[in-house]
Amino acid sequence: MKPYAEMTKEELKKEVKELRAAYHHQQTLDQHYDMSRGKPSQAQLDLSMGMMDVLHSGVDLFCEDGTDCRNYGVLSGIREAKVLLGDMMENNPDNIIIYGNSSLNVMYDTVARAFTHGIMGNTPWCKLSRVKFLCPVPGYDRHFAITEYFGIEMIPIPMSPGGPDMDMVEKFVSEDEAVKGIWCVPKYANPTGYSYSDETVRRFARLKPAAHDFRIFWDNAYGVHHLYDDKQDYLIEILAACKRAGNPDMVYKFASTSKITFPGSGIAALATSPNNMEDILDQLKHQTISHDKVNQLRHVRFFGDIHGLVEHMKKHADIIRPKFEAVTETLQEELGELGIGTWTSPIGGYFLSFDSIPGCAKAIVDRALKAGLVMTPAGATWPYGKDPLDSNIRIAPTYPPLEDLRKAMKLFSLCVKLVSAEKLLAGME
Amino acid sequence: MKPYAEMTKEELKKEVKELRAAYHHQQTLDQHYDMSRGKPSQAQLDLSMGMMDVLHSGVDLFCEDGTDCRNYGVLSGIREAKVLLGDMMENNPDNIIIYGNSSLNVMYDTVARAFTHGIMGNTPWCKLSRVKFLCPVPGYDRHFAITEYFGIEMIPIPMSPGGPDMDMVEKFVSEDEAVKGIWCVPKYANPTGYSYSDETVRRFARLKPAAHDFRIFWDNAYGVHHLYDDKQDYLIEILAACKRAGNPDMVYKFASTSKITFPGSGIAALATSPNNMEDILDQLKHQTISHDKVNQLRHVRFFGDIHGLVEHMKKHADIIRPKFEAVTETLQEELGELGIGTWTSPIGGYFLSFDSIPGCAKAIVDRALKAGLVMTPAGATWPYGKDPLDSNIRIAPTYPPLEDLRKAMKLFSLCVKLVSAEKLLAGME
Repeated sequence: MKPYAEMTKEELKKEVKELRAAYHHQQTLDQHYDMSRGKPSQAQLDLSMGMMDVLHSGVDLFCEDGTDCRNYGVLSGIREAKVLLGDMMENNPDNIIIYGNSSLNVMYDTVARAFTHGIMGNTPWCKLSRVKFLCPVPGYDRHFAITEYFGIEMIPIPMSPGGPDMDMVEKFVSEDEAVKGIWCVPKYANPTGYSYSDETVRRFARLKPAAHDFRIFWDNAYGVHHLYDDKQDYLIEILAACKRAGNPDMVYKFASTSKITFPGSGIAALATSPNNMEDILDQLKHQTISHDKVNQLRHVRFFGDIHGLVEHMKKHADIIRPKFEAVTETLQEELGELGIGTWTSPIGGYFLSFDSIPGCAKAIVDRALKAGLVMTPAGATWPYGKDPLDSNIRIAPTYPPLEDLRKAMKLFSLCVKLVSAEKLLAGME
Repeated sequence: MKPYAEMTKEELKKEVKELRAAYHHQQTLDQHYDMSRGKPSQAQLDLSMGMMDVLHSGVDLFCEDGTDCRNYGVLSGIREAKVLLGDMMENNPDNIIIYGNSSLNVMYDTVARAFTHGIMGNTPWCKLSRVKFLCPVPGYDRHFAITEYFGIEMIPIPMSPGGPDMDMVEKFVSEDEAVKGIWCVPKYANPTGYSYSDETVRRFARLKPAAHDFRIFWDNAYGVHHLYDDKQDYLIEILAACKRAGNPDMVYKFASTSKITFPGSGIAALATSPNNMEDILDQLKHQTISHDKVNQLRHVRFFGDIHGLVEHMKKHADIIRPKFEAVTETLQEELGELGIGTWTSPIGGYFLSFDSIPGCAKAIVDRALKAGLVMTPAGATWPYGKDPLDSNIRIAPTYPPLEDLRKAMKLFSLCVKLVSAEKLLAGME
């Protein structure tokens, strides 16, 4: 089939008619597919059921240093968990705070603390008339929701396969003292799957911020989430890079085991400089006595060490990889020649990113919904939920079983074709 | 022995000499006792080891409604946990949000949210020039630490066995719009062990606050922590009382299982009105996706229902009761006739409160420390750590084994005697 843009009006009319019939048939099938969020599938969750067995009444719940994990105390987390997540995050365990069950919560609290008390002695953001964050787009809706909730002005920064537009980042960060942060998902980014290039990371590390309290919010959510054994992205470690560049305090780095063990029942961590750690712990001591050390111990006993965790991630990859491939194969089969969409082909992470022709994303997601396929709302990948081109759609392939996913992606492709053909035809009227 | 105040100078001199000798002997014994915090003992923690067995790879981790506790979602907590904690807190499960591992964290976040975003549409506290909290004294140091951290002015309110001085509370709350909250531990209070009388609770419910966003921070930490089966304090339920009084939105009520299962690995909850819940969830959805549902399920499966939890608390009581009795017995034996101290005799909770003659508390705690007994720092029970009379000392009897506790309380009594005798003698010079 030839590209839609090269079709005559008559050809397009015929195409729309056929697509509508196919779509209405799909609507009669009473299908229900959920591709709205980056949720692991049940098969992935089953991989971690062994974690429920490592702690029982026949074993002790003590750390190597004698700490009883069942009682109060150890604000920054148990040593064993710092070592495990330090190995995972490629950071010194001394630079790590282990938190509760959610890195999103850590990010929220980090913004909230800056808002109420300021960062390392700087003016609390609530006392400033304007605070701005840079937001690489497309990006993660829950990041944008936090900054929007705090009334922080968000500035979109275009993403390319090597990372955000660093010319823009450098300009904003060095010239505007109101720019206090940037949201980054540096590896297998949400939703593009892009990983920041070496040059991008180096340029981040060498930023010269106008604001003393500018921080990079480095959400390395997918650091160990490779799809392939032989094709993996590698990221220059940002804390070390910043330290080398003379900017040791410029980064908060976040990670968790949410998509390693159980989402909502994992452990989260923050890695940062000693100065930032001191600043953070001075607040954290007012907020809590300690996080869930039993769950920290459970994770450590389950994985043993980083090698155990890496082997575990290979099992996840074996489940997820065919799903990513099913998505790209289906899109290629269905849309490859039509010139009505582009998509990314990540080798890790949880998402792919799809771009329709301008003005179609909302309509595509809406059509999909009405035939039983729930996608992430169009616009969600942009600050304030507003995609100026109305073209970006996040694809989250992990949750549905593989056979469902193939059907869902065929349905999605049908919606793309129908909406695009209608749009092009309308342009001819 | 007669009261110190009735002794002659010579008698006191002799007493001081003997006490000093006894104290110096104690110092040579290389003793180490920790009574600084309200920590359960190892024997108490062992009571909950069965909770480590209820979830394993051979059982499912699904809720009754089919929710997979291993995956994202269910922001306000699983239904079963709401029912269990609803029964524990005497609140409708629909009025409960289940949180993570720490009610202190919930209280901090509640203040932080009021600070950054305001309560139910009212001005965020960070935009106000003055915010004040009422603080019944003696009280809980971690409460005071939160309000101090947010720059909130704290006003001490004297406690009596029936609760805070309600004349003062009513006056401040009704006359000063800057008064936004009051910290309450209404049952077996920290550190006095007092429980609020029916009249006190009713007067709380009938407050007429000048501020629309005044809230009672009702930390019912010891609601089920009785020492006796036949002697128990009962508290009028505050949410219901406020609703009856036409003040449905005036309370945030907090509780947790920290001192029921494992401190730091329990579950926390907040009970409040539908309006407050809506207000809170609108923030919470930005802060996290969900709390640890697996741990919620673990608690539900372990206890079964409220009866299981109550039976569990009896086992705690069997361990703690002799300790409370050892404290009061030792104090009575050692200090009963001397007129140099008074103390409370709670029938529940985690603490007793001791009052020395004015100007002695810091010196007593210091003496104890130097002989190997760590007490909560004197002053900690007052806002800003400043006890104006320097007389109140919190006694936390749960952590040391019973035999240690007897020795520790004898040592404590010795320090009370020595410091008091020295003080009285100095007054005669």
